[in-house]
Amino acid sequence: MNADTSMDLSLLGAAEAASALAEGRISSEELVAACLERIKIDEERVQAWTYIDPEYALSQARAVDLMRREGKALGPLHGLPVGIKDIIDTEDMPTEDGTVLHTGRTPSEDATLVSMLRAAGAIIMGKTVTTELATYSPGKTRNPINPEHTPGGSSSGSAAAVAARMVPLAIGTQTNGSVIRPAAYCGVVGYKPSFGLISRHGVLKQSRPLDQIGVMARSVEDVALLAEQLIGYDENDPDTRPRARPKLREIAMQEPPLPPTLAFVKSPIWKQADAQCRDAFAELTAHLGERVEEFKLPDGFKNAWKWQQTIMEADLAKNFEPEYQNGRDKLSETLRSQIERGRKVRAVDYNKALDQIPALNSALNHLFELRYEAIITPATAGTAPKGLESTGSPAFCTLWTLCGLPAITLPLMQGEDGLPLGVQLVGPRGSDARLLRTARWLLAQVQSD
Amino acid sequence: MNADTSMDLSLLGAAEAASALAEGRISSEELVAACLERIKIDEERVQAWTYIDPEYALSQARAVDLMRREGKALGPLHGLPVGIKDIIDTEDMPTEDGTVLHTGRTPSEDATLVSMLRAAGAIIMGKTVTTELATYSPGKTRNPINPEHTPGGSSSGSAAAVAARMVPLAIGTQTNGSVIRPAAYCGVVGYKPSFGLISRHGVLKQSRPLDQIGVMARSVEDVALLAEQLIGYDENDPDTRPRARPKLREIAMQEPPLPPTLAFVKSPIWKQADAQCRDAFAELTAHLGERVEEFKLPDGFKNAWKWQQTIMEADLAKNFEPEYQNGRDKLSETLRSQIERGRKVRAVDYNKALDQIPALNSALNHLFELRYEAIITPATAGTAPKGLESTGSPAFCTLWTLCGLPAITLPLMQGEDGLPLGVQLVGPRGSDARLLRTARWLLAQVQSD
Repeated sequence: MNADTSMDLSLLGAAEAASALAEGRISSEELVAACLERIKIDEERVQAWTYIDPEYALSQARAVDLMRREGKALGPLHGLPVGIKDIIDTEDMPTEDGTVLHTGRTPSEDATLVSMLRAAGAIIMGKTVTTELATYSPGKTRNPINPEHTPGGSSSGSAAAVAARMVPLAIGTQTNGSVIRPAAYCGVVGYKPSFGLISRHGVLKQSRPLDQIGVMARSVEDVALLAEQLIGYDENDPDTRPRARPKLREIAMQEPPLPPTLAFVKSPIWKQADAQCRDAFAELTAHLGERVEEFKLPDGFKNAWKWQQTIMEADLAKNFEPEYQNGRDKLSETLRSQIERGRKVRAVDYNKALDQIPALNSALNHLFELRYEAIITPATAGTAPKGLESTGSPAFCTLWTLCGLPAITLPLMQGEDGLPLGVQLVGPRGSDARLLRTARWLLAQVQSD
Repeated sequence: MNADTSMDLSLLGAAEAASALAEGRISSEELVAACLERIKIDEERVQAWTYIDPEYALSQARAVDLMRREGKALGPLHGLPVGIKDIIDTEDMPTEDGTVLHTGRTPSEDATLVSMLRAAGAIIMGKTVTTELATYSPGKTRNPINPEHTPGGSSSGSAAAVAARMVPLAIGTQTNGSVIRPAAYCGVVGYKPSFGLISRHGVLKQSRPLDQIGVMARSVEDVALLAEQLIGYDENDPDTRPRARPKLREIAMQEPPLPPTLAFVKSPIWKQADAQCRDAFAELTAHLGERVEEFKLPDGFKNAWKWQQTIMEADLAKNFEPEYQNGRDKLSETLRSQIERGRKVRAVDYNKALDQIPALNSALNHLFELRYEAIITPATAGTAPKGLESTGSPAFCTLWTLCGLPAITLPLMQGEDGLPLGVQLVGPRGSDARLLRTARWLLAQVQSD
């Protein structure tokens, strides 16, 4: 049936695979089989999955192959396997939220985003490991680049599975730094769209003003392809809005009309960046020359981390109250402390913290309007820390997540330990397509050396 | 210039006046002069205004008259005087919020809704009295029907001014019952649109999830005419949404395709209704016969008043913190206590209360989908209480305001004390035009006797 089966199809990016599928050069069954083969080889070492049923994945693939042969391809993701973080409801697989308290939980409905994936023809490959209730306490996943290191969290399994070529695409979520951090640690592209673009209905709720959906893949084009299918209004998520679907992929693939200028924002927590991160950014910004200018945020920004903590912990306390009331002995000490701090937060302080978000955004808008196409800043304080007892710090993502800005991490650099070091670009809220275009431009600047 | 000047133009409703203006039968200057004459006669007794400059009102009127003569009429409110509650910013008049703490406050910008009024050609007649920071402590206004009775609050001056024919139209706000209650007490039509339809940018903030703008006039057509010009998306009010402007007036003037069935909801606080209110409703529902059915809300609804209090007091504590910190000795004892209770509310309890809103709404949607076009229920527990030390109870509005449902009060009945008794209709969220249509239908049922 095709000429490409001699190659390992797990090497294909999503966009490449989509073309090969559309042109009949490969079948979804072959692609899924190649990914399953990667899982078979590497899963014991990586531990990215909490639920996978190879036969069921193949049967979905055969079904979409049949549809395609009948001229009924569903959408741009037709035949592409996608890994789903295990806090996102699936009607045909368990969703256990990374806690023994939810063992055996079987939702009766797909999350909105899972329905949208199916409507676009995607194969729901399985459920990827998350940390405990998508907070800090690690799951079993290891970093595929070096299994002695953390893959990051909380979308640990999604990042590791994409890095290990077990799937070309995966879905994560970010309340603080849970898409960008694991993507950076595992050396893949992680993209967290602007707040409110992707519905969170059917996704474990940590914090309504902070929770955001993100995607992972191995190229900018691939994250654009995936995210574009997920963006849309959902009356079940009150923070989504009716609006035209942005042409993420088309615009991402264009050249910027003028060479962009980037603002290098060290951020008020720059002292947390380790030596190899600082050195790498010094080198990178030197290389970019006049295309990048250091920009110091006003002093008020240093409180953002505290405001985020106030909001997040108060919301964890409310949303995880059933788990706390009925099974606090089965929660990690870290999460229990977060909840206990959160229970004490006063409504006035919570709401004052929330009120800061538009104020921070308006200061950042000023930066973007001034002359900068995007902010360039580390994705993490350094490469993935050694050991599996922590998922590393989300601090370099906190501010942007709090503000709901679109962010992408690119695996542009490497530490002396051989592990990837992510470069994060952050754009104005709602200008997602332009951010992806700038990301591809940046890749070209660095890779053309 | 016209044939109508022998009549008292203050008797005209807004829609009638708009026609007379459009046809050149009267001028805005004449209309405004007639309203000013009413103010001259009755203001000492009623005390509806906190700021009015007759010459400035007349100069606005002459300016729009000139525009009309030049063929440049601005919109459906061209030449109509509107009273503005004194918590709504106006760039050309003080906005003092009913507290000595804000004496002399002069905003530099119009509230969005004031800009919209001007864009539709309205005359900003002056600022109407509000209670202290739009909460419970009364202003100076008296009920025009009987000055020994309260006009209700917090939109006291707006209701009284419309009732006393000082203006055909006025703007109020409602966080609990501050449009419907004074309108009912003063015997005018009060309409509070669905949450999020009218921007609150430039309006004193009490509580983001509760604050809503409302309008007052002397007919359903007139409230429709006014509200329709105010509805719209405003990026400065995060709870407004881009959507098509509903055709309030056109639909309000239509006959319902089928005779509607109303749900008579006594509400869990029915015991607060006084004897004359109960009797009047017994008579009204008997008169409406099979067009009305009593409907008992599920038990869970009885907690709604407590949830509303949790949200409102926590938000008052946050939003009035500067007033509390810098001038608590100048706040009323009532407001000080509210703020002090609010300061103690925990974020988890605040957010749990907020979470009840969609739950209550979905139960109410069930009622509307079942067979009922609207809920019929008292606007207040009885007629306006005697005395000026209180503005009466908002309790019969609390549930609907909390749920963000559109509500309208009609001056359909009278108490034995000769004071008006409002009949409140409440519709499904977003179905404002149909609610107004049902209100006109109800008027016809009662007035055709």
